[in-house]
Amino acid sequence: MTAIGIYGSLGRMGQAIVGELSALGARHAGGADSRDDPAPLAQAADVLVDFSAPSALPAHLAAARAAGTPIVIGTTGLTSEHHALIDAAAADIAVLQTGNTSLGVTLLAQLVREAAARLDADWDIEIVEMHHRHKVDAPSGTALLLGAAAADGRGTTLADVSVYDRAGVTSARSEGTIGFASLRGGSVIGDHSVIMASEGERIELVHRADSRAIFARGAVRAALWLATQPPGRYAMAEVLGL
Amino acid sequence: MTAIGIYGSLGRMGQAIVGELSALGARHAGGADSRDDPAPLAQAADVLVDFSAPSALPAHLAAARAAGTPIVIGTTGLTSEHHALIDAAAADIAVLQTGNTSLGVTLLAQLVREAAARLDADWDIEIVEMHHRHKVDAPSGTALLLGAAAADGRGTTLADVSVYDRAGVTSARSEGTIGFASLRGGSVIGDHSVIMASEGERIELVHRADSRAIFARGAVRAALWLATQPPGRYAMAEVLGL
Amino acid sequence: MTAIGIYGSLGRMGQAIVGELSALGARHAGGADSRDDPAPLAQAADVLVDFSAPSALPAHLAAARAAGTPIVIGTTGLTSEHHALIDAAAADIAVLQTGNTSLGVTLLAQLVREAAARLDADWDIEIVEMHHRHKVDAPSGTALLLGAAAADGRGTTLADVSVYDRAGVTSARSEGTIGFASLRGGSVIGDHSVIMASEGERIELVHRADSRAIFARGAVRAALWLATQPPGRYAMAEVLGL
Amino acid sequence: MTAIGIYGSLGRMGQAIVGELSALGARHAGGADSRDDPAPLAQAADVLVDFSAPSALPAHLAAARAAGTPIVIGTTGLTSEHHALIDAAAADIAVLQTGNTSLGVTLLAQLVREAAARLDADWDIEIVEMHHRHKVDAPSGTALLLGAAAADGRGTTLADVSVYDRAGVTSARSEGTIGFASLRGGSVIGDHSVIMASEGERIELVHRADSRAIFARGAVRAALWLATQPPGRYAMAEVLGL
Repeated sequence: MTAIGIYGSLGRMGQAIVGELSALGARHAGGADSRDDPAPLAQAADVLVDFSAPSALPAHLAAARAAGTPIVIGTTGLTSEHHALIDAAAADIAVLQTGNTSLGVTLLAQLVREAAARLDADWDIEIVEMHHRHKVDAPSGTALLLGAAAADGRGTTLADVSVYDRAGVTSARSEGTIGFASLRGGSVIGDHSVIMASEGERIELVHRADSRAIFARGAVRAALWLATQPPGRYAMAEVLGL
Repeated sequence: MTAIGIYGSLGRMGQAIVGELSALGARHAGGADSRDDPAPLAQAADVLVDFSAPSALPAHLAAARAAGTPIVIGTTGLTSEHHALIDAAAADIAVLQTGNTSLGVTLLAQLVREAAARLDADWDIEIVEMHHRHKVDAPSGTALLLGAAAADGRGTTLADVSVYDRAGVTSARSEGTIGFASLRGGSVIGDHSVIMASEGERIELVHRADSRAIFARGAVRAALWLATQPPGRYAMAEVLGL
Repeated sequence: MTAIGIYGSLGRMGQAIVGELSALGARHAGGADSRDDPAPLAQAADVLVDFSAPSALPAHLAAARAAGTPIVIGTTGLTSEHHALIDAAAADIAVLQTGNTSLGVTLLAQLVREAAARLDADWDIEIVEMHHRHKVDAPSGTALLLGAAAADGRGTTLADVSVYDRAGVTSARSEGTIGFASLRGGSVIGDHSVIMASEGERIELVHRADSRAIFARGAVRAALWLATQPPGRYAMAEVLGL
Repeated sequence: MTAIGIYGSLGRMGQAIVGELSALGARHAGGADSRDDPAPLAQAADVLVDFSAPSALPAHLAAARAAGTPIVIGTTGLTSEHHALIDAAAADIAVLQTGNTSLGVTLLAQLVREAAARLDADWDIEIVEMHHRHKVDAPSGTALLLGAAAADGRGTTLADVSVYDRAGVTSARSEGTIGFASLRGGSVIGDHSVIMASEGERIELVHRADSRAIFARGAVRAALWLATQPPGRYAMAEVLGL
């Protein structure tokens, strides 16, 4: 039985992960929170999962590296400095960092990338997401992740083609752009639609999250997979064999 | 057989209306375009339909009023001066002005008004629309019409509660607001969704236009109804008996 | 504070109702299950809620009637004998029986009825629902409730116009029918779409249940409303003032 | 300029294809209908497109084979005898036979196959389609094509896992099945949704046909591609390089 250690074990995601461990054949190596020394957990666990805070990540990475323990990082709000630390740690241990641990979103991103790669530039791409009324950022990180997959499929980058706001526009759509729209309301966990529209037809690739447990299950599945990987930096797509 | 006269008969909507007349039991009293004297058509027709340009509307209204002929106005981009002229003409003739002549949108607006009136303020209202890549304004006039119906149902006005852009926001949704989002792509004639979301459930009220003929048919149906009305200003909802 | 008594208090819905009471300003008058004498609870409560089993309903109704206590009945699978008992009890006490206590579905049914009443017979009505993989009946009771509202709006009954299966059909759609389709998969709590389609346009009236708590909250809200009503048989629509 | 010859040139699809030729850089080599000798057209054209009738297909295939001219077959309702003739002809000429020439549906089928291959068996697959009120068969051929792609992705065949009707069922969903549902109404050209639902999340892969021109354009694009291929039997996926 793989022993999974959780940084941020008292947070909402940490608690959800604890709840999913046994159903997926893993066991709890213990948790640690921001006041705790991260080293003992890194030594006790076969693999680590981090859903803590960006400020705690450097210490968690250092502990994982020192113990030679693979680590899944689901903490969001990372800067380029954090990514540099992750790249450095990946020289010694297996590291998987992702903005969305859901298996469904991971697969959808792959389908979006492939569709964008196959369709001509006269297929317009739009991404619309809906989340609960308490969400403070827009578009969602997952919408951006899907947009980046579409841009990648087209051989460009999201920064070059994204359009984040159309209110009041007085010109037609520019070819090759990727538009975003955000809806907020109720208790919606997260719905995302990538719409590809051409003259006379549309393809819509949609993900609906009906329960937050999917993020915990995906994180555990990623951890079980990562536990046996050699050093390197990995992505969720590899967990699914994509 | 009701004789319908068309101002703007050479435009796309004018031509579409001509194509729908006989199927709906009407006949063509003739058309007029911007260079023509509008008076003869107003005298020959039992009812007029205007899909021309805002600049031509004053002369068309004057001709209709002089001839005592009811008039349906579907021309968009009207200012408050145009509306004042319409109100004045309505003292002498029946006038129906609308931003969308589709029967489906007219009914949907009524359903939105009723739903908004019945639901508590903790139901968040969002409106998302998609149109073809050539459309230059956003949100669509129909999205605004639906938003106004929702605001009216809640006893407020759209100007007081509308939110047109969420990109980059860093605060939670404000209760009572109505959000708008616009998607552009392909050849979509017009899809509109009004989403009402509460804790644990959502209602979505949707209209999809699959053919531009619906606007012409609705205009003819409105004209046939208006032909027998006394002077006054009317709305599409009344054509459906709403 | 209104005291609500729950028949079937140990069931999934009973437990959910207990969880919603305090948030809605009610208190728990106690629960009773199938082995218990229903009379003490009927006497202690200001209003009763029944989510037990059809076989227990006659005793619960008799107890409510004897105590003069209003009762909300959400138990499903009722026969015409049960309905006759309910009608009889309604001579002495307020009784509200419904197949779906969600406020959103209740409003949607009203919108469907109104839309069906306003649209001509050349608007085809179809109802599609999706529920989790464990659901054993199809179409769902809520789909039938929505279909009955549509049929009622058209001045007919569902039995006269329903079409439950199209697989393998080799003829065109018959005007005036209402079609049903059922999807099953995953953990979907319940999505329902009523689609009204005409030449060139569609209206879709949709409800999505994201949490089972909406049924408990609607039941409590119905109970609070019913507690002050005179004898008679009521429906969920009246709770919303529809 | 590639010269395209059309069998069935007076039919709805034949006429639509003629209308698309010049925009896609092709020219019309002439048409032939059921009374005509198919040989002259086969000799005059660089590539043939057949949207005639199954009964005419053998003569068209023979003419194409005799002239050494590639042929795209979009005629539907083919039997196993027709498929045997196609296989035989493919020894000498390039033949592409398909039930749907839309590029969007072709891509969607590929995405469905890939998604089904990647997802575990606890993801339930359901397919729902909507078409206009005049369509006489259900499910649509395209729904079956998408179902076959899903079954193929899972390493099985549609015949082994399809469920065509759920009305009145009194048992839970069987794992591994693929369910179908058909909606009919209005003038809908063709909407298809493949829903993959697991515990807590759903993926929906959707195609909406807004114009029948997409089928003509796809047929011309397939013909232009097939014109330069060596003998063999091809599928639409290859036209897109899938």
